[in-house]
Amino acid sequence: MFYIIGLGLSDEKDVTVRGLEAIKNSTRVYLEAYTSILMVQKDRLEAFYGKELILADRDTVETQSDEILHNADKEDVSLLVVGDPFGATTHTDIILRARALKIPTQVIHNASIMNAVGASGLQLYNFGQTVSLVFFTETWKPDSFYDRIKENADLGLHTLVLLDIKVKEQSDENLARGRKIYEPPRYMSIPLAVSQLVEIESLRVTGTLDPEKTLAVALSRVGGGDGHQRIVAGTLQELLDHPKEAYGEPLHSLIIVGKRLHHLEVDYAEEFAINRNTWRAVARDVYACSLD
Amino acid sequence: MFYIIGLGLSDEKDVTVRGLEAIKNSTRVYLEAYTSILMVQKDRLEAFYGKELILADRDTVETQSDEILHNADKEDVSLLVVGDPFGATTHTDIILRARALKIPTQVIHNASIMNAVGASGLQLYNFGQTVSLVFFTETWKPDSFYDRIKENADLGLHTLVLLDIKVKEQSDENLARGRKIYEPPRYMSIPLAVSQLVEIESLRVTGTLDPEKTLAVALSRVGGGDGHQRIVAGTLQELLDHPKEAYGEPLHSLIIVGKRLHHLEVDYAEEFAINRNTWRAVARDVYACSLD
Repeated sequence: MFYIIGLGLSDEKDVTVRGLEAIKNSTRVYLEAYTSILMVQKDRLEAFYGKELILADRDTVETQSDEILHNADKEDVSLLVVGDPFGATTHTDIILRARALKIPTQVIHNASIMNAVGASGLQLYNFGQTVSLVFFTETWKPDSFYDRIKENADLGLHTLVLLDIKVKEQSDENLARGRKIYEPPRYMSIPLAVSQLVEIESLRVTGTLDPEKTLAVALSRVGGGDGHQRIVAGTLQELLDHPKEAYGEPLHSLIIVGKRLHHLEVDYAEEFAINRNTWRAVARDVYACSLD
Repeated sequence: MFYIIGLGLSDEKDVTVRGLEAIKNSTRVYLEAYTSILMVQKDRLEAFYGKELILADRDTVETQSDEILHNADKEDVSLLVVGDPFGATTHTDIILRARALKIPTQVIHNASIMNAVGASGLQLYNFGQTVSLVFFTETWKPDSFYDRIKENADLGLHTLVLLDIKVKEQSDENLARGRKIYEPPRYMSIPLAVSQLVEIESLRVTGTLDPEKTLAVALSRVGGGDGHQRIVAGTLQELLDHPKEAYGEPLHSLIIVGKRLHHLEVDYAEEFAINRNTWRAVARDVYACSLD
């Protein structure tokens, strides 16, 4: 059996009991190490599982899936992924490959940011499509995310914005010279994300992402328990001005709040507000939320 | 500490290791028994956890939350919910109440249908807002879900439709007489759900839910492993004509496929198609998907 096992959001104890059993029964266990990151290191996972983990980078999962799937029709092989197995396209690829090789596959689900985002107090029913925001460069500023956020905003819906991660990237020079030397991992911070949003707003000028009038919620390490999880709410401008360190460690995500905002959502997320007065005032005056 | 612990989607082994530890350390453990159902009975959970479970129905969680929260500032108390704790509004209510009482709270996340729906092969990025569909009666046919599905469809997005559950409902007579006698639980079937969708389409006539031209995917017991999980794909008419038993046991959910459909999504879900030829033909001709 080929297992694809979601590890959840935080550390080694977020695996499910079903997932842990599958890991312990597997002859080979791969840890997918690029679409997201856990908050713990490989050796801590290995100690907890009592298993050696084989790191599977992008190359391995995308182009050498047959190596991972080798013999999985005769013995148990597991591929561990952070969050839920269906967060990233690449896992459907390897399942399709397993199907073609007639290898039985079982997916073991877990929490991912796609549902744990409810920790913000914003209702999952009120979210539209999820978007990704990539690091801008001087010459490359892809802005299709803006249209998606506007589509959601026009319907009054919230948008979950997933922030870019650069893991195992090569510099242009190392790439050109074929040197497998990798840059340190980079994770987009909340202030950088907001500055990119505001930059595109300044070009499009539709008012969808008004620094003073658009509310947003920043999330860090959701599910990480005390001392890890951070949730910060405010206007885009407040989030931009807030010290980077106050958002905690990566990974970060950002929610753009839609106009269908309910007063219970306002009450719940107020706990996380940089400035409770601004939070409530904008919710009342701009979002037309009925508040006491 | 007050813990709200997601149990995941299927059975007793879907709890996370972190969740299981919290349960074992709790002096009282409540099992929320109305917003959704697990596939296993209470006694099986109790045997696995080594703990007695106190059933908490709607009354208890919504109006008697202080009973659940009693002493949770001095000892550990857990409330177990199917899926993830932020699937239903009621859990934010009890967290707000705990906050008011200054009781520390920790949420332990898990998979829910909101992210496990990726098992269909449809990409989570391509989903719009989620809607709920309630049982129609002769005199009450609330149809606001239709507007939501149309909003999503107009953007080319998929819609997850959650089907109604009636648990612990009283008949009009028993309610009038104040008799606490409850009807057997009812779960909306896929053919009934589709017939309700088509009924509203016949009144609105926008073409959003065309029986022959709209693709949909039915899900049952996602994450339940072999012999439990069922996924069935086809046009609305095919799903309507398919035998009710073929969908497996409740709970069921339904996805209305949006026009932004990608050919990889078509390939993946083809495995679940009632008729592969129809599936591909509609994807190509109506959804304008580039297929080989």
